[in-house]
Amino acid sequence: MNTFFSFVANSIFSWRHRCVALLYRKPLFNFFLSHTTNTKHVKFKLVLLVCLVWLNSTAQQATWIWYPGDFEINLANKMQNRRTDRNTFFPPFWKMDAHYVLMDFHKVFDLKAPEEITVYAEGTFNLKLDGNAFESGVNKITVPAGKHKINVKVWNEGSVPAIFVHGKTILSDNTWLVTFEDKEWIDESGKTSDISATKWLNAGSWNFDSPSQLPSKFKLPTKPLLAVNKTVSGNITLVDFGKETFGFIKLHNLKGNGKISIYYGESKEEALDAAEAMTLDRLSINQSEARDSVMPLSKAFRYVNIIKESGDISFNDVSMLYEYADVKQRGSFTCSDDEINKILDVAKYTLELNTREFFIDGIKRDRWVWSGDALQSYLMNYYSYFDNPTVTRTIQALRGKDPVTAHINTIVDYTFYWFISVYDYYLYTGDKKFIEQIYPKMQTMMDYCLSRRNKNGLIEGLSGDWTFIDWAAGLSKKGEISFEQLLFARSLESMSLCANILNDKSKAATYKKLAADLKAKVFSIYWNNQKQALVHSRVSGKQTDNVTRYANMFGIFFNYFNETQRQQVKKSVLLNDNIQKITTPYMRFYELEALCAMGEQDYVLKEMKDYWGGMLNLGATSFWEEYNPTQSGAAHLAMYGRKFGKSLCHAWGASPIYLLGKYYLGVKPTSAGYTTYVAEPNLGGLEWMEGKVPTPDGDIELRMSATEIKISGTCGTGTLKFKSKSKPITAVGDITDKGNGNYELVIEKGKSYTVTYN
Amino acid sequence: MNTFFSFVANSIFSWRHRCVALLYRKPLFNFFLSHTTNTKHVKFKLVLLVCLVWLNSTAQQATWIWYPGDFEINLANKMQNRRTDRNTFFPPFWKMDAHYVLMDFHKVFDLKAPEEITVYAEGTFNLKLDGNAFESGVNKITVPAGKHKINVKVWNEGSVPAIFVHGKTILSDNTWLVTFEDKEWIDESGKTSDISATKWLNAGSWNFDSPSQLPSKFKLPTKPLLAVNKTVSGNITLVDFGKETFGFIKLHNLKGNGKISIYYGESKEEALDAAEAMTLDRLSINQSEARDSVMPLSKAFRYVNIIKESGDISFNDVSMLYEYADVKQRGSFTCSDDEINKILDVAKYTLELNTREFFIDGIKRDRWVWSGDALQSYLMNYYSYFDNPTVTRTIQALRGKDPVTAHINTIVDYTFYWFISVYDYYLYTGDKKFIEQIYPKMQTMMDYCLSRRNKNGLIEGLSGDWTFIDWAAGLSKKGEISFEQLLFARSLESMSLCANILNDKSKAATYKKLAADLKAKVFSIYWNNQKQALVHSRVSGKQTDNVTRYANMFGIFFNYFNETQRQQVKKSVLLNDNIQKITTPYMRFYELEALCAMGEQDYVLKEMKDYWGGMLNLGATSFWEEYNPTQSGAAHLAMYGRKFGKSLCHAWGASPIYLLGKYYLGVKPTSAGYTTYVAEPNLGGLEWMEGKVPTPDGDIELRMSATEIKISGTCGTGTLKFKSKSKPITAVGDITDKGNGNYELVIEKGKSYTVTYN
Repeated sequence: MNTFFSFVANSIFSWRHRCVALLYRKPLFNFFLSHTTNTKHVKFKLVLLVCLVWLNSTAQQATWIWYPGDFEINLANKMQNRRTDRNTFFPPFWKMDAHYVLMDFHKVFDLKAPEEITVYAEGTFNLKLDGNAFESGVNKITVPAGKHKINVKVWNEGSVPAIFVHGKTILSDNTWLVTFEDKEWIDESGKTSDISATKWLNAGSWNFDSPSQLPSKFKLPTKPLLAVNKTVSGNITLVDFGKETFGFIKLHNLKGNGKISIYYGESKEEALDAAEAMTLDRLSINQSEARDSVMPLSKAFRYVNIIKESGDISFNDVSMLYEYADVKQRGSFTCSDDEINKILDVAKYTLELNTREFFIDGIKRDRWVWSGDALQSYLMNYYSYFDNPTVTRTIQALRGKDPVTAHINTIVDYTFYWFISVYDYYLYTGDKKFIEQIYPKMQTMMDYCLSRRNKNGLIEGLSGDWTFIDWAAGLSKKGEISFEQLLFARSLESMSLCANILNDKSKAATYKKLAADLKAKVFSIYWNNQKQALVHSRVSGKQTDNVTRYANMFGIFFNYFNETQRQQVKKSVLLNDNIQKITTPYMRFYELEALCAMGEQDYVLKEMKDYWGGMLNLGATSFWEEYNPTQSGAAHLAMYGRKFGKSLCHAWGASPIYLLGKYYLGVKPTSAGYTTYVAEPNLGGLEWMEGKVPTPDGDIELRMSATEIKISGTCGTGTLKFKSKSKPITAVGDITDKGNGNYELVIEKGKSYTVTYN
Repeated sequence: MNTFFSFVANSIFSWRHRCVALLYRKPLFNFFLSHTTNTKHVKFKLVLLVCLVWLNSTAQQATWIWYPGDFEINLANKMQNRRTDRNTFFPPFWKMDAHYVLMDFHKVFDLKAPEEITVYAEGTFNLKLDGNAFESGVNKITVPAGKHKINVKVWNEGSVPAIFVHGKTILSDNTWLVTFEDKEWIDESGKTSDISATKWLNAGSWNFDSPSQLPSKFKLPTKPLLAVNKTVSGNITLVDFGKETFGFIKLHNLKGNGKISIYYGESKEEALDAAEAMTLDRLSINQSEARDSVMPLSKAFRYVNIIKESGDISFNDVSMLYEYADVKQRGSFTCSDDEINKILDVAKYTLELNTREFFIDGIKRDRWVWSGDALQSYLMNYYSYFDNPTVTRTIQALRGKDPVTAHINTIVDYTFYWFISVYDYYLYTGDKKFIEQIYPKMQTMMDYCLSRRNKNGLIEGLSGDWTFIDWAAGLSKKGEISFEQLLFARSLESMSLCANILNDKSKAATYKKLAADLKAKVFSIYWNNQKQALVHSRVSGKQTDNVTRYANMFGIFFNYFNETQRQQVKKSVLLNDNIQKITTPYMRFYELEALCAMGEQDYVLKEMKDYWGGMLNLGATSFWEEYNPTQSGAAHLAMYGRKFGKSLCHAWGASPIYLLGKYYLGVKPTSAGYTTYVAEPNLGGLEWMEGKVPTPDGDIELRMSATEIKISGTCGTGTLKFKSKSKPITAVGDITDKGNGNYELVIEKGKSYTVTYN
């Protein structure tokens, strides 16, 4: 608590952290409330109250604002165009959208007293008060008392039009409205047009809270890191940073005349293989005075191999600037099994490295934003950072702009994951405003999908569509694939849910019906009673023989099977070694989720130790894009037909974060933003475990051993569900006996519960 | 001929003019052909032949290329955001689109010998040969003999991705293909995806024919111009440039410390009215050494009023840099009436001033691209510059990009003019490639229009739509307006014609049927037998009483009336003074066109002298946005509720260029690109007239007096149509008697005809 308190205290006096402090207003308030019944520490609580009053007084704060999605799309363009492949610029192969170049921002204020405001803009702008423009160069005006409308219209081709407006009460924030076409013209008599049909959205913003913090200049922060080992042999310097990392290599006191090449390696083998290393830098040096040289592009590596190619060059050290996203770890998990703790540490580090401007797939190769990969990062994020901006930024970047000319990342399944991720986000965060703003783009994206159904009303990859599913040898992508229909049905359900949130009843009904029809079709077409499973596909109207895990495992946690089918699928597919094994952590995520959803936590724990533990045993310092335990040696590094093609730090490798939070601590929201939630802890063979699950309003803390469960939460109303052989005991609250050894306890916010059970 | 010959000769040795010379290849060849039967000037013809061979050998020339429309959209953004209103930045109120930020360019070459190429790009790029990328920094490679594919992929957020590739035979030009989404990915085995569904367009280009001539740096040329009068009185310097002009004011030997304001005026009244002048500059000077100072923004003016506001400032002269578009005058018209010649001169100057990066509306106020205004400029252009790039650039800029979120310029009628202008362009130029490239955008634009019909299948302005029609006092915009339906029907016909050009038979039939149905509806709803006219509108299902000129005059030259209706409309509307008069040159354009189409050239000539002559009598040096002969004094300057709101140099004021070319010289294409055409000259009361009408392959020259018609053309096959009381005589060709004193003569290309008639 002292740490937390001192953080809050520091925040008060630090402008830089003020916005972070603001995030803590609500948890702080909850904390305060939960302790008002306790009479101890009166002085401490007084200070707390002062903090709260101060935080509320400064809650109104100006921030840079823009058209929602534009900063995100622009930043994604910048980031995704930083990929290089052996020193070649390697951009994405899908459409990259651009920001709107002309933007109108406005808000109406009702002032008690006249107020001076200052306006900053990224771009050429004009400033209007009640429709009257000021001359160019004026950015400080006094707004008289009363009701007044302020407009700022900004044009910027090179970067996103953005404004920062700062007065006593007039502040730019996301309550301002924006449009890319105000449709406000003047007729020959001087009369202004009717603008009632102009469509406005709420401005987008993030954390650019001072005039000088320009959104266009955004860069991730860096910090210096030293190498753990350096060996020099002739012209070759091999540097080891001890573990997978990401950043800018720095050569110290570089001087001389000649050429240097720097080969980066996630493995030692890669760094040492000048012909095959995936990334590299070439330097031409001509400087007689020694000076430090930082590479222009950040890269992923553990090893760097610096070769003096020609001339006479010297440098006396190599270090790096570690580049990271400034997100805070809120979730936690510790347990009695050290290997699991180690796996979780490496998983967290893997997610940390892949959490950058956006949730990316892997840090070495493409560093792009992929919808299927991102969805998993979102889910892990809900059990670690609970950082909404990184989620919404990624969702916006993936969606880009209309018109829709291809699937997201060109991948059919990735479009579907996108829909699903939007509803997931709402469920975890309760951020209705985001749904409201993104809904039009959800509709046009769904129109695109609906327009691409085949004559049977099913999704079947058309020319130019990538049907991905998974990296798996020999996996058929032909015909109507059951897995794609399941994702499509779930997407339609997500659309229906989002339409309902926004009270668009008619659309909600339409999407619901489409989903129900498709689900019915899925079972009539793909369910095979003999195989007791959904088959993989239908080709030319005929069910194929093949059963794969994909549709079957998604069917489990989508809750599409009846209980009989669930048990059949578990046996005939999930626990059946004759069904093609999954070798990517990407699909192991869902496979293990399906098993957890069926209460197989004991089994999954062993699988986790086996699979993720297997990578650790091979020396992994972050988790990989693909891991096939049956392979050995160099095969672990190769992929895409290239010797070092595989990414050794891939976000989808970090899924234990999600599995342990959702299925062992067992905490998940049951209504938006954790207004209600369940905690259904499952030790899965562990002696004990403890951890925190973040929510929009503070954390849910839980500790479980074989005989005791402790739980408290600062948000919503939870239901603790657990089994006990004997009647469990609690000092706070009333435990309900649900029969068959099942018990439930309602968890009210601000209260701590200790349940004794066995 | 000597001038022409020396121009060709010079061109050979001037790289700068080479592209211009290339434009003359075809006319030169035609000229050569037409003189091969003549044995004179053998030496001259030999030189001509050498020129031709040389021109053909250099026909292949590299040029900067981009995604078609992107340079245009970007340039339009720049130009349209140069509007200022009393020193306030004043941007458009419609959506401004941005260029695609990531672009792939490619072409397959089949080389006889290895060839070195150099690649230049605007943006970060990679270069691939047969799918294999070179390292960054490589822009010079050798392409081996045989068949090879070259790709250049460019990313640029600030300006349009563009490339310039230069080898012996490998040259960037509009035969290269471009896409904003290549959809080329690599699977886990290293296999490249199927890209057969990727959509490619031909690259866009213009005249950036050297590596250093960057498209992003494009600026119109300027030349110095001196003032004709300067009066100094205290702190005020009033400068008169003698006539309406456009450019950058230059203060010579400016020095001192203080502030200056410059007020621009199209009229002396405006320049002298510091409180009401529409445009102005403010300068803060602090320089002890005298130096020339050129204003950063070009402006429209005849007068400038320079006021030393404060401090001690001196300058010893004021001049300007005249900014202009480098287009060549090809059409001409001269006649026996000096007033008409003067009107045409001022019309040409008016069009010259408004022909800039695009065809704009007027040079003073908004300097924007407006579809209705532009269509008239295109038509004038076909009888003057015949400059295709300015037309297609304007069409592209107006259309912007998908999705369509509003009408073009937000104006319903302006969307319709856009469709019509595209087909017009094809008819005059025969540029099928342009139709092919713009057709997808025509379809989505038409989808938008079709989606906005009311329950009766008619266009009725929705909230946010601007129904413009014309600036006319009290003109009703309510309900279903007949004029809009006519334009809509014509647009559908244009769509059908374009679909046919591209062999899209099914769409062609759909659009044709929609047009026919709408036309039938127009006559059943709006035709009033008693009024012998189309009424103005229907409100709440009831025909209104009002008859306006708009629908009726368009019905004439759209050829929508039967002969009886035509004559009725002429009498009851066009020549009926009780119908509200038109006061804008904009609609006078169509009114006079309708009368000309009915053979009323004598009447129209008088109207022209009266209306345009009227402006000249009031001292106009360019033609105005609006002219109401019944007004006087200051009323001629006011508009939009502002004292000097009216533009005194508006493109739509220049229509005599079009009327005289199309309806007096009487030349117009009857099939695309003047493959066939008619010349139906009509003196309209003049003693004689002569002139040239440009075509894609040289000019059609015509001279007519009361007794003689001379005609020759270097393109297509023409039909000269004329009336004669006695049997006309020609030495070349055979005149056909069409009865009733009507005669026709077929005009073959390269031949000259002299017809004697009376």
